[in-house]
Amino acid sequence: MDNRQDREAKAGAPQARTAGPAIVLVRPQLGENIGAAARAMANFGLSDLRIAAPRDGWPNERAEAMAAGGAPLLHAARVTQDFQETIADLTLVFAATARPRDLWKAAVTPREAMARARAEIARGGRPGFVFGPEASGLSNDEVAPADAILAIPVDPACSSLNLAQAVGVTAYEWMAGEEAPPVYGDTPVPAPRADVLGLIDQLEESLDARGYFFPPHRAETMRQNLRGALARAGFTAEEVRGLRGAIKALAERPRK
Amino acid sequence: MDNRQDREAKAGAPQARTAGPAIVLVRPQLGENIGAAARAMANFGLSDLRIAAPRDGWPNERAEAMAAGGAPLLHAARVTQDFQETIADLTLVFAATARPRDLWKAAVTPREAMARARAEIARGGRPGFVFGPEASGLSNDEVAPADAILAIPVDPACSSLNLAQAVGVTAYEWMAGEEAPPVYGDTPVPAPRADVLGLIDQLEESLDARGYFFPPHRAETMRQNLRGALARAGFTAEEVRGLRGAIKALAERPRK
Repeated sequence: MDNRQDREAKAGAPQARTAGPAIVLVRPQLGENIGAAARAMANFGLSDLRIAAPRDGWPNERAEAMAAGGAPLLHAARVTQDFQETIADLTLVFAATARPRDLWKAAVTPREAMARARAEIARGGRPGFVFGPEASGLSNDEVAPADAILAIPVDPACSSLNLAQAVGVTAYEWMAGEEAPPVYGDTPVPAPRADVLGLIDQLEESLDARGYFFPPHRAETMRQNLRGALARAGFTAEEVRGLRGAIKALAERPRK
Repeated sequence: MDNRQDREAKAGAPQARTAGPAIVLVRPQLGENIGAAARAMANFGLSDLRIAAPRDGWPNERAEAMAAGGAPLLHAARVTQDFQETIADLTLVFAATARPRDLWKAAVTPREAMARARAEIARGGRPGFVFGPEASGLSNDEVAPADAILAIPVDPACSSLNLAQAVGVTAYEWMAGEEAPPVYGDTPVPAPRADVLGLIDQLEESLDARGYFFPPHRAETMRQNLRGALARAGFTAEEVRGLRGAIKALAERPRK
């Protein structure tokens, strides 16, 4: 690839990146966590990964090994030694921290933060989420430039969240807030009510023939129990046919 | 700890477990993922971990190494070789899968599923989420007993989610989620899953005895059709008893 092609390829990347908010990893320690974070980003539709001062240098083999479908994000990541450079172009910054000391900022949940990020993108801005190193989290200097604290809700009894999990639930809010849930295949419509009533009639007649509704004072309760269960079940037309065939098979005289 | 203290400590555990839905890992392969899943559960306030047929046996050192604050969940986990045993007491089951083949169930997002789980707990039921092995996911037989599919929204271009991430975003919805919708009147709790599986077994045996599953190449589809329909129906324990009585009555030799 010559220089001109290389420049063009790089120029193409930022456009693709603007689809969702940026994820910024500051001084990450374990390559495994960087890779797992990239994978989770890709799973949930994010692509703009930035890394400031990774402890073990760059590229990182362990990150590659963990990234799976997120590997292209590692290759396209902006990696720099300077934290401030990684957030320079962002217009709305959330800093993930459980311990903002000596400074006050509003704390928002991932859901609220992502809603604000979405609105920011809609009006042409560029939001990002900043995550600190595994052991110590972000320093005060790294939290200070943020608009707000990203406060992921955790059980106070077990509040230490894995870095990739923190990125994962944040990225999840990008995908979960956006689209209707996927529908797999053709969702069949429940059977017309007449089919279900036919099923119930057939079952009751077959049971009557066996003297099932006994003793008489219990019969009506027994019928209602069956009707209620089958009417509520939401069977499809095909399922009703299957169940009617099953009842017929049971009601027949046993074969010799 | 003497025996009495030990019993008391154990007696205390199930109570703690009922606080949130169960997480069931079926045939998990990597100890690291089991440990990371336990940690994410603990982060987000879940405690009832169940494991069916872990590939590398139990206990698992790699799981311990990854669990951090989730280690107590590993020690308290119910580990069994039998998948059906792990869901026997559950009254509402979601199966995490991206590929439900040859059977139809409604797909719900983690957010919707967790709202339903919360409502189920509020009325005295016991919900759970079932996750399959890393490489292959749940089998059809493992999806069939579920009430619905848990469909975690992902980018179709990168849809393979790490097991611990899948558990993580689901558990996150427990901690992050909205309140349960109000319940009006006495809503009966669905039967424990073991009852429903017993009903299905009885029906299949009775039908087998009549030669119902014919021709052979159609038999498996016919079985799945019946299983899927009955697993999804939300029968109460009393309704299951009624239906089992009905099947028994039909399966008996006709009275002269």
